[in-house]
Amino acid sequence: MTYPTATDLFLDDFCLGQVAERRHVIEDADILTFAGITGDYSPLHVDDEFARRSRFGRRLAHGLLTSSFITGIIGMELPGRNGIYMSQTLRFRRPVFIGDEVLVRATMATIDEEKSRITLATSCLVDGEVVVDGEALIFVPRRPHSQAPSS
Amino acid sequence: MTYPTATDLFLDDFCLGQVAERRHVIEDADILTFAGITGDYSPLHVDDEFARRSRFGRRLAHGLLTSSFITGIIGMELPGRNGIYMSQTLRFRRPVFIGDEVLVRATMATIDEEKSRITLATSCLVDGEVVVDGEALIFVPRRPHSQAPSS
Repeated sequence: MTYPTATDLFLDDFCLGQVAERRHVIEDADILTFAGITGDYSPLHVDDEFARRSRFGRRLAHGLLTSSFITGIIGMELPGRNGIYMSQTLRFRRPVFIGDEVLVRATMATIDEEKSRITLATSCLVDGEVVVDGEALIFVPRRPHSQAPSS
Repeated sequence: MTYPTATDLFLDDFCLGQVAERRHVIEDADILTFAGITGDYSPLHVDDEFARRSRFGRRLAHGLLTSSFITGIIGMELPGRNGIYMSQTLRFRRPVFIGDEVLVRATMATIDEEKSRITLATSCLVDGEVVVDGEALIFVPRRPHSQAPSS
């Protein structure tokens, strides 16, 4: 099976402030699939009647579902396939509902040449409002000496 | 459709040190499903040949996939359906492979009566070794005065 191709970048290829973004629309099917994987069938996510009576008024996406889109950027684009994901912080700031389009953004915040690590400021936004934010720490090796830079 | 039932607990029901645990075996299908939801088709997760040549020697689960099992405990058991998940920190400490059984554990670390919040120490273990650890912060309301404690 052929999958989308991840970038093949090294520590030397990055600069502060560079940004990668992706968009995902939250589908009901994503919520039910994520409930199946994680076992989180909280009625806030799967029970219309319970959710309607809650402070949110309707079913919402799991905070970790919305957050999981961050790995799509990290694994595929920034830094891509050479990164080793070390840590992630997540603040769930606003509810995300079925049909919401989530803009996921990673911004290069620090490049630690000595430890060969980067930190990305990571955020998820819906209609311009931050719904999740946090920080990712990722080890990225330097380009091997024998390898020519990709053009 | 009928789903498993989440606990209906309030801030007053918890005590320091109480523990909830769940177990999940990482299936190849979970990795592919998670790749589909998140868009993270990094070859470390989906390409046997690339992963074999990597430092890990074989395909591994996404760190956020293993971590996502934490929401199963939080949404269903500790604290269950009345909690509002506010934040989560995650450190990815060791790789997790297909076939690994992940023991997910949440331990009540603090109960803040004033802010009506709890923190859980959250960890994922494989064969007794920590693969992911971190902390969850969750708002849990007090029991409404009109409601009798559940027996």
